[in-house]
Amino acid sequence: MQLFWEKGYGSTSIADVLQGAGVNSGSLYHFFPGKQDLLLAVLDLYETGMNEMLLKPAWVHVDDPIERVFALLARYRQSIVSTDCVYGCPIGSIALEIHEPDPPVRAALARNFDGWTTAVLGCLLDAGDRLPRSLDRKALAEFVLTTMEGGVMQARTHRDVGFFDRTVQQLRDYFELLVRAAGTDTATGRSKEVPARRRAHR
Amino acid sequence: MQLFWEKGYGSTSIADVLQGAGVNSGSLYHFFPGKQDLLLAVLDLYETGMNEMLLKPAWVHVDDPIERVFALLARYRQSIVSTDCVYGCPIGSIALEIHEPDPPVRAALARNFDGWTTAVLGCLLDAGDRLPRSLDRKALAEFVLTTMEGGVMQARTHRDVGFFDRTVQQLRDYFELLVRAAGTDTATGRSKEVPARRRAHR
Repeated sequence: MQLFWEKGYGSTSIADVLQGAGVNSGSLYHFFPGKQDLLLAVLDLYETGMNEMLLKPAWVHVDDPIERVFALLARYRQSIVSTDCVYGCPIGSIALEIHEPDPPVRAALARNFDGWTTAVLGCLLDAGDRLPRSLDRKALAEFVLTTMEGGVMQARTHRDVGFFDRTVQQLRDYFELLVRAAGTDTATGRSKEVPARRRAHR
Repeated sequence: MQLFWEKGYGSTSIADVLQGAGVNSGSLYHFFPGKQDLLLAVLDLYETGMNEMLLKPAWVHVDDPIERVFALLARYRQSIVSTDCVYGCPIGSIALEIHEPDPPVRAALARNFDGWTTAVLGCLLDAGDRLPRSLDRKALAEFVLTTMEGGVMQARTHRDVGFFDRTVQQLRDYFELLVRAAGTDTATGRSKEVPARRRAHR
């Protein structure tokens, strides 16, 4: 997990793994016949560990569902800062690094993204009528993932966390306008919310 | 350019390049002593060719500055669809693939992102008072890049262009709310625009 994240999947050799794990090749091959088997185990660990490793620490002191979305993004900011801006999301990096992933690898990457957006969707559902009724909350959850991945990529490329901060601030401004639109909607009963009708015509 | 994009930088061998270009190794090494020199030339070509290869074709029939932003994103949708959803942004992919880029490579990647966001910033400036006065337009231009990169990454991972479409639709809804906020601002003179004051307190 550590090596694939630090060096990338392609650049990590089996020799690196043997040295890093302090095991001999017979033991490794017994459990992981090929490097891809190791990658699948790593992706599985990210998926099953998401709650303990990522969500719980991010949300332990945050109850407000909308603030939880930004607390999750703040965890990534910490990772960016603590790595001097070389941090890359391990799932996103592998998703772009491997150009022709075998179907099980691609499926494992997709499951990780699904787990992440489902957790964010839970927050957006918990936000109830603070967000507009017509809002596509699943699409907004995916947009939060988009924000994280795009912000991480730019901060890493520019070696400047400001790129992450500004992109998250744009998302915050969007949430602010959505909350305001929902409030207007409730107050006046008029449809001042997100123009969902547009979607049908595209 | 083609090989790095299709196979990734790390997976492309010098033998692949020689075969693809139909040249012998002496000729290649004369101009490009190492693979990284070739990468720098490719990144330079993306940068200098951005206008002819990307922006002009995207904007030839589109004059409205805000629609130009979405016309640019629509070019990426075409690439996603025409590659059966395996498309990856060549710059973003290399930015995440290479874990310890040499400084000239990182700088060339950053210049490509800068060129892209500067072009989008031009559109946002052209939009004038249709967008709120207090809006950080450079940050929004970076957010448009975030949207493209995050949407491409998710569409590729899920092999489903719907993920790109939904993320772009979220950006469109944000623009819609910004335009509405600017209109309110103009009409009433009251500050109903993006809460810029929040930025100072973060």
